[in-house]
Amino acid sequence: MHSKHREKLFSLFDDDQNGAVFIQGKDIMYRYDTDYEFPFRQESNFWYLTGVNEPECALILDLNTEEYHLFVPERDAQYAVWHGYVKTREQYLEEYKPDHLHFHNEILTVLNELNPETVYCLNEEQAQFVEDLSRDFKVDSDSLTDALTYCRVLKTDWELDQLREASRVNNLAYRAAMQAIKPGMYEYEIKAIFNKVQLENGLLMDAYNGIFAAGKNASILHYVESKSKIEDGDLFLLDAGFECNGYASDFTRTFPANGTYTDIQKGIYNSVLSGMNAVLDAVKPGVKMEDLHLLAARTMMEGLKELDIVRGSVDDMMNEDIFALFFPHGLGHFLGLDTHDVGGYPKGVDRIDRPGIKFLRARRELQPGMVITVEPGIYFVPAVLEPAMQDEAKKSFLNTEKVRSLLNFGGVRIEDDIAITDTGYENFTDVPKEVDDIEKLMK
Amino acid sequence: MHSKHREKLFSLFDDDQNGAVFIQGKDIMYRYDTDYEFPFRQESNFWYLTGVNEPECALILDLNTEEYHLFVPERDAQYAVWHGYVKTREQYLEEYKPDHLHFHNEILTVLNELNPETVYCLNEEQAQFVEDLSRDFKVDSDSLTDALTYCRVLKTDWELDQLREASRVNNLAYRAAMQAIKPGMYEYEIKAIFNKVQLENGLLMDAYNGIFAAGKNASILHYVESKSKIEDGDLFLLDAGFECNGYASDFTRTFPANGTYTDIQKGIYNSVLSGMNAVLDAVKPGVKMEDLHLLAARTMMEGLKELDIVRGSVDDMMNEDIFALFFPHGLGHFLGLDTHDVGGYPKGVDRIDRPGIKFLRARRELQPGMVITVEPGIYFVPAVLEPAMQDEAKKSFLNTEKVRSLLNFGGVRIEDDIAITDTGYENFTDVPKEVDDIEKLMK
Repeated sequence: MHSKHREKLFSLFDDDQNGAVFIQGKDIMYRYDTDYEFPFRQESNFWYLTGVNEPECALILDLNTEEYHLFVPERDAQYAVWHGYVKTREQYLEEYKPDHLHFHNEILTVLNELNPETVYCLNEEQAQFVEDLSRDFKVDSDSLTDALTYCRVLKTDWELDQLREASRVNNLAYRAAMQAIKPGMYEYEIKAIFNKVQLENGLLMDAYNGIFAAGKNASILHYVESKSKIEDGDLFLLDAGFECNGYASDFTRTFPANGTYTDIQKGIYNSVLSGMNAVLDAVKPGVKMEDLHLLAARTMMEGLKELDIVRGSVDDMMNEDIFALFFPHGLGHFLGLDTHDVGGYPKGVDRIDRPGIKFLRARRELQPGMVITVEPGIYFVPAVLEPAMQDEAKKSFLNTEKVRSLLNFGGVRIEDDIAITDTGYENFTDVPKEVDDIEKLMK
Repeated sequence: MHSKHREKLFSLFDDDQNGAVFIQGKDIMYRYDTDYEFPFRQESNFWYLTGVNEPECALILDLNTEEYHLFVPERDAQYAVWHGYVKTREQYLEEYKPDHLHFHNEILTVLNELNPETVYCLNEEQAQFVEDLSRDFKVDSDSLTDALTYCRVLKTDWELDQLREASRVNNLAYRAAMQAIKPGMYEYEIKAIFNKVQLENGLLMDAYNGIFAAGKNASILHYVESKSKIEDGDLFLLDAGFECNGYASDFTRTFPANGTYTDIQKGIYNSVLSGMNAVLDAVKPGVKMEDLHLLAARTMMEGLKELDIVRGSVDDMMNEDIFALFFPHGLGHFLGLDTHDVGGYPKGVDRIDRPGIKFLRARRELQPGMVITVEPGIYFVPAVLEPAMQDEAKKSFLNTEKVRSLLNFGGVRIEDDIAITDTGYENFTDVPKEVDDIEKLMK
């Protein structure tokens, strides 16, 4: 599992180089200066290389011998009383299989023994830590992040399995929420049902602060209040997911609180769905995310034109960014140990390889093993549309009467998680998205 | 509501003083350097004085005129798209009722207009912020925290109502968890049920990272893994609670996974319950927490002696800290906007009043309006008991054979939340704690 990730990283460095990677794992976070602890969640790069989701650890990878040194904290009896079992040396070795196990205070000793030409660190802060240990080390705090990004963008089979499991549970949670919703409930009641399915399936950490938005709240892209009453006639937008061993799922569905779409809801919903389907038809290795984004936007504008919400030439709407009035966010993002996973805008695109590290220039074109979200959406945001209706150039594309009547509509987003394969894609999301299928599920 | 809290604070300062209180509210916290947002939760002192649970606000209290200035962020249309409705001036005034409303960039202007002799701040960091605005201000970063602690220790009626509501929902959640548990389930399944009751009742923020511990996991005081299978014959220790408008509840119950206590479980449970009941019988204004702690410890040791787990003189066990081998934590803590609320060890106890600020010396004796937890417990922690059984002095008090047989027992804790009244206390916790009542509920 995680040894494969280290191998991938080793393969990016020149064989003859005498360097070392040093990463400090994270500690427990507290809210402000209180003793309120956030549930521990390892930093993603450290987790990726070690599988260690425990606080106060560190690693050194010897690029010369390709050996893995894990550093763990030394615990006393007081720790056992308050925080948990104190693992023995044997238990650490068994669980994480490092080549060498040390206590945390031995980092300098090990670095001195390895005496690397260069110590590769994740960032300036960790570089500073190494420099504070000894000014003799030459530290590079730039290449490692790029190299890890390169590794993490293309998922291993084990990583795909974790993403599948996160999605499997998310599929169950979405179905439970869609079957339970009734007008008169509060948004937080849907969150209660949704989270219960995650937790009872052993997924204890949300991948992000989920969105449970009824009616016009759906027009706020990151709405996290979850406190409004769900009215009869509302659409409900649910955008949430939990992690499996650190790997996220991230779906969105938008469904009618009373189980049946109205005509206008169906019209707008199907415009978004057409955008989604056009993208899924086009997804394959070599395609660029920005082209898919524009394809979704164009398809949705055609839908809105059919509904007589926008008017005029769709080409002009694309050229003059009219689509962004309704679709103000990106089509999707990489998905992995972070919900907004690394690799979206790799620094390496236009850069020549560095000496000593030979990872290829990362490319934004889709490649097999990448996992992305596809999430087109149409929203009626008064703060965006009201000024547009005052703007001579933009106004000409808008059926202002109809747009005005939809200012409380909210929004529709549909989001699937897909893995790019050699021939196309695998869709991890298995929640109905056709109007008929959704209405049937909610009956 | 919150205006009463400001009045309380004003009353602690000399009437003729020309000072000002400045507090910066908190911003959204992110996990490490990712875009994972923790749900926003205001810093408790700021929330206490304003009722404002929104990021990026600040306050100035003019101690001379007793006027309240609220500073709010200026939001643009982009904010409306991503994060939420942009409140109008009128909405802010209506919701939070400040005497004066300003944008956040007007802090220096207002401070210059007020021209206070002293600016009282919560801590060095905020004092630094004020000093960076202008070196002309004299800043005191010490008195304000003490004054707010003094205010917060004695709850207003409105605060008691919030605590009652948090407890009302917690009562429901405990009963649901106790009725649902079965051997073979996993700890996280109990958490799923427990959290669902909180969320569906509109309590969206946990008061702390809850403990769901089966069998021997209960001997870890802050066990937060929640991943073990619950075995037939296990006791299950549940220590969790959520916030209502920031105010915490914090209960513990320890119940048999299969619905029936074994004899030894019943024996140890009833020892803890005796400790709890002895404390509740003794609670009234004027009593000291440390005396209650020792009363609980002594009562529990008498119970363990009856069970022939400890041997010898209970007086000696108290004098030689044998009780701490089984009861290694405190009897309880203040409860309020923080779970471990302010005021536990007030700095003011032995200190003479400062010039300009006349709050009384806080006292650790219980007073009407204080809210505390009472949480005696007995645990079998191998990391504590194994060394004790090797120690000549301690060993003589232990029936080592029996203690050894209980090293996998785990632990029992019982915790209620109570408010001190003029004549005794009000118990917010309404979850069965007698063995018979628990077994009946779980049938």
